[in-house]
Amino acid sequence: MRIGIDAMGGDHAPVEEVRGALAARELLAPGDRVVLVGQEDAIRAQLKTEGVADWDQWVDVRHASQFITMNEHPVTSLRAKPDSSLAVMTKMHRDGELQACISAGNTGAFVAAAQMNLRRLPGVHRPGIAVIVPTSHNPVAVCDVGANIQCRPLHLLQYGIMASIYMDAICSVKNARVGLLSVGEEDAKGNELVKATRQLMKADRGVNFIGNVEGRDVFRGTVDVVVCEGFVGNVVLKLIEGMAAGVIKSVLKEIAMVMPDHLDKIKAAGAGLAKKFDFNEYGGAPLLGVAGICIICHGASDFRAIKNAVRVAGDFSRRQVNEQITELCKSTEEA
Amino acid sequence: MRIGIDAMGGDHAPVEEVRGALAARELLAPGDRVVLVGQEDAIRAQLKTEGVADWDQWVDVRHASQFITMNEHPVTSLRAKPDSSLAVMTKMHRDGELQACISAGNTGAFVAAAQMNLRRLPGVHRPGIAVIVPTSHNPVAVCDVGANIQCRPLHLLQYGIMASIYMDAICSVKNARVGLLSVGEEDAKGNELVKATRQLMKADRGVNFIGNVEGRDVFRGTVDVVVCEGFVGNVVLKLIEGMAAGVIKSVLKEIAMVMPDHLDKIKAAGAGLAKKFDFNEYGGAPLLGVAGICIICHGASDFRAIKNAVRVAGDFSRRQVNEQITELCKSTEEA
Repeated sequence: MRIGIDAMGGDHAPVEEVRGALAARELLAPGDRVVLVGQEDAIRAQLKTEGVADWDQWVDVRHASQFITMNEHPVTSLRAKPDSSLAVMTKMHRDGELQACISAGNTGAFVAAAQMNLRRLPGVHRPGIAVIVPTSHNPVAVCDVGANIQCRPLHLLQYGIMASIYMDAICSVKNARVGLLSVGEEDAKGNELVKATRQLMKADRGVNFIGNVEGRDVFRGTVDVVVCEGFVGNVVLKLIEGMAAGVIKSVLKEIAMVMPDHLDKIKAAGAGLAKKFDFNEYGGAPLLGVAGICIICHGASDFRAIKNAVRVAGDFSRRQVNEQITELCKSTEEA
Repeated sequence: MRIGIDAMGGDHAPVEEVRGALAARELLAPGDRVVLVGQEDAIRAQLKTEGVADWDQWVDVRHASQFITMNEHPVTSLRAKPDSSLAVMTKMHRDGELQACISAGNTGAFVAAAQMNLRRLPGVHRPGIAVIVPTSHNPVAVCDVGANIQCRPLHLLQYGIMASIYMDAICSVKNARVGLLSVGEEDAKGNELVKATRQLMKADRGVNFIGNVEGRDVFRGTVDVVVCEGFVGNVVLKLIEGMAAGVIKSVLKEIAMVMPDHLDKIKAAGAGLAKKFDFNEYGGAPLLGVAGICIICHGASDFRAIKNAVRVAGDFSRRQVNEQITELCKSTEEA
C-alpha cells in the first residue's frame, strides 16, 4: 500500500508532515510506503534536519510546485493551481499510484480535489466527513462535519450507514447505534430535514437507528454515530474543541487555587487530560463516500496526528470500508 | 410589579417553585409581589411545609386546575387545557394582573402560550429565546435556542438587536459584539440563511456586527451575542450542558488518580466548578420579542434559578428592554 501525505498542508507544514511520515515506519507492512507530496527542496531539507539516515527505506518524495493555503477558496484555488500538492496527490490516487491520501491543509480544497479527481463511490450521493469525538464513555462519530453544508434526507441516511461501517472498522463497534441530531426526542420535533430523514431511517434496515438525539447525548454513552447536516456538525465540532480547552483550563485553575502546594501534580494531570481531548490522538477524519481513501487532519496537527492518520488509512483499506459502503448504499438506492 | 411563577412547571414542581418564591423576598421593592399560579392545595401545602409564617406579605396564590407536563405537545395541550397554569398565567399577564411570567415547565408550551396570549411587540417578526452561556472570559448570549426552529434572515437580524439590548440591561455590556454563527469567518462560507443574514446585518446600524463566528469563538472572549437559527442554537445549548458536566467529571477523576490523598479538597473544588457552569446560577432565559416579560427556566431548576429569574424579570422591566426593542425593531421594518 502506498499512502500519500500532503507535505504542504497544515499549520506546521512541512515539519510535522515529514516527522509523521518518518514516525509511521512502525505501522507499515513490508512493501508499504508513504509518499510525501509537495515542494521537493523543502521536504528534502526537512528530512535532512530530522537526521534519519535510512528514510528512503519507507518514504518517497513526489514534487509538486504549488500549494494551496488555508484560506484560499477551494474550487478557485484548485483551478488556479493544477500543480498544487492536493491536486497532484489526489490525481496520483486516481491513477493508482497511491491507495490513500492524507492532508492537514485546507479542508474545503481537499474535499473538492477528492470529489473532482476520485469521484463518488457507486450509489453514494454526497461524501461526508466523520469525526470521532472523545468522551468519557465511548468514542462517538459525528457525520457530516462540513463537507456538505446543506443536506437532503438521503444524504443523512447514507451518513448513518457509512459512519456505522467506519466505526466497526476503526473502533470495533458492532451494529453502531445511530442517532439523528435534533432538538428533542419526539417524532414531532425538529426541522423539515430531520422529520423527513427520520422516516427514511426508520424504514431502512441497513442502519441501527435509535431515534433523535440531542446535543447532550453525545456525552452520555447512549449513541455511537450522530448524523447531522454539515453546517450543524461543523458548528458542533468547533464548539467541542473550543469548550474542551476552556473547561479543562477552568478546572485546573480552580484546583490549583484549592491546592497551591501541588501545582506539579495538577500540571501532570492536566497534560494527561489534554491528551484525552486532543484531536491529534485521533488520527484524522475520513471523507466517507469517495472512491478512494482520504483522511483529513486538523490544521494544527502534529506528527502524532499524521502518524495516526497513516494507521487509519491502513485500517480503512484492510477492513474494506469502501467495499462495504458500496454494497449497503446500493440498496438505499433501490429502496 | 407583580411577577407570576408557574408553580406546576419544572422537574421539582411545586417544591422548588414555592421555595424560589419565598427566597425572592429580598429582591422585591415595596409593593412588589410574586404570584404562584397552579393547584392551590399543592401550593399551600408546600408553603406550610416551608414554615415561613409571613409568606403572605409578598406571595399570592392563584388557582389553576390543570397543568401541562414536560412532554405534551405545546399547541395541542394548551387547547386541551384552558385552565392550565401556563394558560392562566399568560392570560393574567395579558390582562395586566401580572407584569412578568416565569416557568421551568414545558418550554414549547410556554412559548406558544406567550405568543398566543401576549402577542409580539410591534415590528418584531419572531420571538427568540436568549440564553446566557457562562465562559471563563465573558458571559455570551446565544439567541435563538429553540423558539424558532427555521428562521428567515430578518428574524436573525432582530435576534442580534434584541439580544444586544438584553445584554446591556442584564449584564451591563454596552454595544455588544454580535457574531453570526457559521462554519468559517469568510463571506463565502455558510449556508444560504447565513449568507443572506450577513448582508442584512452589515447594512443595519442598530447592531454592532463583527462578522461570522465559529463554535469555538463562544469560549474565546471575542463575542458577546451569538445569533443562530433555533435548531442550531438548541443543539449547541444542549451540547454545552452535556459537555460541561462530562469534562468536569473527567478532569476531577484524573486529578483524583494523581492525588488520592486529597479527595476532600478535589471534591470541594469540583463543587465550585459545577456552580460556575450551573444554569441555575443564571436565572433563566427571556423570550425576547413578546409583548410582555417571559422568563424560561431550565426544567431541572432549583429555588436559586427561580429566585434569579425573579431578579432578571425585575431588571428587564426597570431597564425597559421591551421599549428599546420596539424602538429599534421598528427601524429594521422601515429599512
